[in-house]
Amino acid sequence: MADPSDILSLAKRRGFIWPAYEIYGGVAGLYDYGPLGAEMKRNIEGYWRELYIHQEGFLEISCAVLGPREVFEASGHLKEFTDLVVQCSRCGLSFRADYLAEKLHEQPSTLSSDDLWKLLEENNVTCPDCGGELSRPTTFNLMFKTAIGAGAASREGYIRPETAQSMFVNFAAIYRHAREKLPVGAIEIGKSMRNEISPRQGVLRLREINMMEAELFVHPEQKTWPRFAEVKNEELMLLPSESERTIRSSLEEAVRDGIILHETLAYFMWLTWKFLMDLGIDEKRMRFRQHARTEMAHYAQDCWDCEALLGYGWVELVGVADRGCYDVSAHLKHSGADLTAFERFDSPKEVIVKKVMPDLSRLGPLFKERAKYVAGKLSALSPDSLPEAGSDLKLDIDGETVIVPGNCYRVIEKKEKVSGRKIVPHVIEPSYGLDRILYALLDHAYHVQDDYVRLALSGRVAPIKLGIFPLVSKDGLDDIAKEICDQLSSTGVACYYDDSGSIGRRYARMDEIGTPFCITVDYETLKDTSVTIRDRDTTDQVRVMRDGLSKLADRISKNLTLEELNKQA
Amino acid sequence: MADPSDILSLAKRRGFIWPAYEIYGGVAGLYDYGPLGAEMKRNIEGYWRELYIHQEGFLEISCAVLGPREVFEASGHLKEFTDLVVQCSRCGLSFRADYLAEKLHEQPSTLSSDDLWKLLEENNVTCPDCGGELSRPTTFNLMFKTAIGAGAASREGYIRPETAQSMFVNFAAIYRHAREKLPVGAIEIGKSMRNEISPRQGVLRLREINMMEAELFVHPEQKTWPRFAEVKNEELMLLPSESERTIRSSLEEAVRDGIILHETLAYFMWLTWKFLMDLGIDEKRMRFRQHARTEMAHYAQDCWDCEALLGYGWVELVGVADRGCYDVSAHLKHSGADLTAFERFDSPKEVIVKKVMPDLSRLGPLFKERAKYVAGKLSALSPDSLPEAGSDLKLDIDGETVIVPGNCYRVIEKKEKVSGRKIVPHVIEPSYGLDRILYALLDHAYHVQDDYVRLALSGRVAPIKLGIFPLVSKDGLDDIAKEICDQLSSTGVACYYDDSGSIGRRYARMDEIGTPFCITVDYETLKDTSVTIRDRDTTDQVRVMRDGLSKLADRISKNLTLEELNKQA
Repeated sequence: MADPSDILSLAKRRGFIWPAYEIYGGVAGLYDYGPLGAEMKRNIEGYWRELYIHQEGFLEISCAVLGPREVFEASGHLKEFTDLVVQCSRCGLSFRADYLAEKLHEQPSTLSSDDLWKLLEENNVTCPDCGGELSRPTTFNLMFKTAIGAGAASREGYIRPETAQSMFVNFAAIYRHAREKLPVGAIEIGKSMRNEISPRQGVLRLREINMMEAELFVHPEQKTWPRFAEVKNEELMLLPSESERTIRSSLEEAVRDGIILHETLAYFMWLTWKFLMDLGIDEKRMRFRQHARTEMAHYAQDCWDCEALLGYGWVELVGVADRGCYDVSAHLKHSGADLTAFERFDSPKEVIVKKVMPDLSRLGPLFKERAKYVAGKLSALSPDSLPEAGSDLKLDIDGETVIVPGNCYRVIEKKEKVSGRKIVPHVIEPSYGLDRILYALLDHAYHVQDDYVRLALSGRVAPIKLGIFPLVSKDGLDDIAKEICDQLSSTGVACYYDDSGSIGRRYARMDEIGTPFCITVDYETLKDTSVTIRDRDTTDQVRVMRDGLSKLADRISKNLTLEELNKQA
Repeated sequence: MADPSDILSLAKRRGFIWPAYEIYGGVAGLYDYGPLGAEMKRNIEGYWRELYIHQEGFLEISCAVLGPREVFEASGHLKEFTDLVVQCSRCGLSFRADYLAEKLHEQPSTLSSDDLWKLLEENNVTCPDCGGELSRPTTFNLMFKTAIGAGAASREGYIRPETAQSMFVNFAAIYRHAREKLPVGAIEIGKSMRNEISPRQGVLRLREINMMEAELFVHPEQKTWPRFAEVKNEELMLLPSESERTIRSSLEEAVRDGIILHETLAYFMWLTWKFLMDLGIDEKRMRFRQHARTEMAHYAQDCWDCEALLGYGWVELVGVADRGCYDVSAHLKHSGADLTAFERFDSPKEVIVKKVMPDLSRLGPLFKERAKYVAGKLSALSPDSLPEAGSDLKLDIDGETVIVPGNCYRVIEKKEKVSGRKIVPHVIEPSYGLDRILYALLDHAYHVQDDYVRLALSGRVAPIKLGIFPLVSKDGLDDIAKEICDQLSSTGVACYYDDSGSIGRRYARMDEIGTPFCITVDYETLKDTSVTIRDRDTTDQVRVMRDGLSKLADRISKNLTLEELNKQA
């Protein structure tokens, strides 16, 4: 298991991940991606888009991260997205109450505020920093709050804590764009923020998070999946909530036995599994853990975390959940906007509808020239919204409240042909933590032997695909190497030219950042234009003709071995 | 000139740009990119990366958007990044004071608070919304402010108003990554935010901005550019600050005549010009406008805005500036970190250095066993920091202040060989407003004739490259069309399958979103596998073999015409 401090130190030294604002002492929970990290992040995003956009046909959108209070009131974040915090009365530092109770309870995060406080008090827990007395826990909202606009007319705003909300509030527009068909999937790759009280574990618990989220809007009663048949025999490692141990199960069995709720969930769990494996997460250190009922949001119907075993223990990288109709319903209710999909029946159906029928012969004498207008208002009422059939009604007519006697209208039932009905879609959500995935890839790729570090990154994510060296910087070898580097770079392959130090040191520098192959130009090259290619993991070398390099270069991102590359070159 | 409301309406209807949080009434200055806008945005970013990373060798980083107070204190944003605001005493709305004075003065934004107030008062300007009385202008900081962490120990935080600061604070790490060589360039594509008081002009003045910024760190005295020779004969339209009218000038002339300050600035102005033209901005509606001395930041040495003529008038899309040493110096001073580059001399130079030389024979009796320690402290002092040679000194020794008499040390001058010197790099900054560029591309591509809308987007930025239709949805034509669509999509080419309505309506839908070519599968296809390709702009059609399509598809992003495509298919 790789030691997190070794990984973070390599990541910093070689330009993968830098603590943000380090020249000002840094800020806990904020990190920057250096040149290699930014390239690796883009490679991960690129492959994710390949799967979700090109393979699965999801629509990508890119939205504002700042939102008004109403959105987070509706989503429940304003009320629910909180931690319990205790503050030291001496030094003023704040701590997550459940963190302080970690050694005193199995699952302190499930405790109520009172129980947590009792536990801390009974065990005389004091400030971990200065030993001072702690306050009772208070509720702290984890969203970053700000003001939009100036002065008295400014609005309360929050930075979104997940990209998901942007897709929920845009459901109607997404549905229209898909020409009003379900299922329709949307994705967003973007930033969200969480004001963690005590960020720790390096880049695992961040205040600024890069997420890749997919929201699949489906018919509530149609959770089978057409392409499920293609993958039903694939196997996953599952840790069901009722079980003590991990089982290997095919997707088909898991759905049949009711372990995974339905085909759609199972399909996207498999897609996630494949995605992580293709990037380079070690399958033997991966599992899907099902949320216990107590751990799941009350509205979630089923929820699985894809976890990887890292130096920190088992860490969630991706969550795949069936969120039911919760999200769309919540925004429908709060905004009043029509966030439904229309289900067209195979053939029109006869249904009985209730209607309010105004009686103009009675309205006329009462309302004179306004009678027709009042009648229109009455017809527009929903019968279900009336206090009681036949009761007097208060209506707002041009800002004036008038009383309409109960005998001026009737509620009638009528047969009507309807071509379909409105439904609120359910949401299946695969949610990927990009920062954690990147870190996990470094962890699983990290090999060290006698202080020699080799990062066995897959060709797909490696930030540099090819190191290109002249054996010596003379006799024109350097010019040829530079030329090869320019040529391959111009086709979009990330290459790195290096002529400083011994070949061994140059290999070592490339091995340490996960470069899959190195090309060396030597005196043979002058004779027959052949160069050597060296494999990072086996250190094997083969000679290939310079002509073949351009073909070969972009194949590296398909994760070929040296042998396969050589065959194709 | 395209009417902005037509463009915004098309952009909304077809999924380019959506007002954010529309179901909650929206928030001024916040917009979302729908599926077509997000794809177009990625195309712009992709081509920009091609130029800056692959062609120019810049290093991409990806950084936190939230930062602590210290960063923006150093950068000057806390003090300077402000607008003058007046508030209505009746309705409470706030307004930019200079906006209210727009019809009363040529350049109201250059006026002082007092002068602006005088102007508004003299002209009896009242609240544009309710006619109420306005307050005196106050200074309003345009950064979004928040708190990082919980409770008393939380820190003041701001959302960055430009990506640039992330590159400045990381200069030391970037320089190390480039193995300590100048020039070194960094880029970032990311979000920044500005709390505009009165956002207006659609997506031109946003509260959340997508930026692409490049920061080139150069030697202060080396502002020639090796590749300048390659482009020196290229011409730009320039509006120098001293001039009334736009001139056409080659880069070489402009630098020689002192219109553009130096080669490096001119080179990146050209790169910007080419970038925008290649994307599809009409060269005839483009110019570089030089900032007047009064308009430029005091530290800027030269600054040019690349402007496009849009429905709104001339609008800045990109700024290219020589910012001198201002940014790096500011962070060096505030953080105390070493943000210098090391200039190695061709051969070591002899220089005279001053040193503090302690006199142990006098320190001994005075300080006993601490004498050596005090001597060390003295040697470490910089002679220039002493109040006066030979004066008594106060030293902090283990937390105790001691007086060292002036006769206990001497300041001597010594010859030393040094191999180089520390320099603070200058910064050349090309800064691209991604949202404005995207909007400008829609504006310049917009054509309407008899209510028929055609968006003449270049193949490079068009969100959909190919529409793929069966002539009719039977006899297997639809299956072939779907197959072609799947095949091309799997190679990463954005295709759109459509079989609904007449062919004419399908062409119209594709023309409206800027799809360069449409492929139609018809009965000929069944005989000889040929399909038709139709050109959006000429409506010409040619037949090509299905085999040739895969080769052709990715060439569309190179902006080929139908004729060129046909030749190569």
